[in-house]
Amino acid sequence: MGSQSRFLPFKMDIKEIQKKLANFANERDWDQFHSPKNLVMALTSEVGELNELYQWLNEEQSLLDNKNDDFSQVKHEIADIFIYLLRIADKLNIDIEDAVKEKMKINAEKYPVDLAKGNATKYNRRDE
Amino acid sequence: MGSQSRFLPFKMDIKEIQKKLANFANERDWDQFHSPKNLVMALTSEVGELNELYQWLNEEQSLLDNKNDDFSQVKHEIADIFIYLLRIADKLNIDIEDAVKEKMKINAEKYPVDLAKGNATKYNRRDE
Amino acid sequence: MGSQSRFLPFKMDIKEIQKKLANFANERDWDQFHSPKNLVMALTSEVGELNELYQWLNEEQSLLDNKNDDFSQVKHEIADIFIYLLRIADKLNIDIEDAVKEKMKINAEKYPVDLAKGNATKYNRRDE
Amino acid sequence: MGSQSRFLPFKMDIKEIQKKLANFANERDWDQFHSPKNLVMALTSEVGELNELYQWLNEEQSLLDNKNDDFSQVKHEIADIFIYLLRIADKLNIDIEDAVKEKMKINAEKYPVDLAKGNATKYNRRDE
Repeated sequence: MGSQSRFLPFKMDIKEIQKKLANFANERDWDQFHSPKNLVMALTSEVGELNELYQWLNEEQSLLDNKNDDFSQVKHEIADIFIYLLRIADKLNIDIEDAVKEKMKINAEKYPVDLAKGNATKYNRRDE
Repeated sequence: MGSQSRFLPFKMDIKEIQKKLANFANERDWDQFHSPKNLVMALTSEVGELNELYQWLNEEQSLLDNKNDDFSQVKHEIADIFIYLLRIADKLNIDIEDAVKEKMKINAEKYPVDLAKGNATKYNRRDE
Repeated sequence: MGSQSRFLPFKMDIKEIQKKLANFANERDWDQFHSPKNLVMALTSEVGELNELYQWLNEEQSLLDNKNDDFSQVKHEIADIFIYLLRIADKLNIDIEDAVKEKMKINAEKYPVDLAKGNATKYNRRDE
Repeated sequence: MGSQSRFLPFKMDIKEIQKKLANFANERDWDQFHSPKNLVMALTSEVGELNELYQWLNEEQSLLDNKNDDFSQVKHEIADIFIYLLRIADKLNIDIEDAVKEKMKINAEKYPVDLAKGNATKYNRRDE
């Protein structure tokens, strides 16, 4: 237990949260609304709210600290987006950790340090 | 160790991934582009790609299984959204697990089972 | 005047509306916030609100008529998106009518009737 | 005819464009995909592409002129968003010009010059 427990607080039990979210929806009879298509739209509306919080801030202001009035709202929007993303992955039986690791490997191959370094143009065109 | 290790594969080390993403950006000199404002836009563009994959599917079709041609693309978009969300949280020093738990508690208070059950109208108006 | 006036109510003076929107912003000293980047985020947040209105509706329900409670809200969101789009175009000196005609021509070439007819797969892959 | 014709080039026949877009969809048997819900997702995916073009630009850079490589792409994305917005309005029998005028009147009442002037905070909180 010893050395392992040190790291436990940093680890997040994604599957456990997904189970709780599924129970939450089931108890309220909301599963009927939770098709991946609908959940993508719900995710989008939360992303819209995050955009609203940042739309008139310049880049420096966007680094708001936890004393900023908007901070707890930003925190809640990030949670909402995270929650819907976990719901979508659960519905599609996608293992998020697996997906993230796969994508990070792809990105590392796509943007080798020597070509990508400080290269905004390349970076900007990265999905083309 | 015994009983605990059974659950370890389900746990995701969010902070470890955030550290890797930060290193990835630093090595490429990309940190200069990663203001929260810019990252919110990058997140939004990935969410747009997820919408593109679902826009012409009906709800039933949207439950695509892993033999569907779009499946691996959906998986990658979900990973991209997750990655940018972790980056934003890291930049703002927001603990995602903490944020998610806080939001789930708020949702439970906001939508008690007896009032919310099967109530689509209520559900639809939940942020108003 | 005669025959022409019949059609006038159908025509929209985009440039006149853009001038009014510019005046509205100038009078309030808001032009400082209206960089194209910020306006794109503001547009995105309105699109998020439109998504929220449709997220739990199925496709048939989404054809809401003007007696639906959400109808006037949908109308206002569409107006908001239109307004920000006109603002962005104005800031970039893009002639929207010209842009739309150019894009419609491109689409006609990209999707000839014989190849595109009823072809959902093709349609779905249209930007790839 | 005289004085009026001077202004004609500035006017856009929204209904005429909507009719052409409806014909375009009908000829390709695409109307079956064009529920308002689906069109909102298609609009969202175009807005995502606009975000992608602006995500790493700072506000000053976002004022790109027509010599910029991205300019024609931005122009096409704006056209795409406009086209989907017109399609949605057409499907819902919403008169866009009417909607825009109604919303501009509401905004004028909501943000009187003396209260709103240069007031970013107020502006930022405008929908709350």
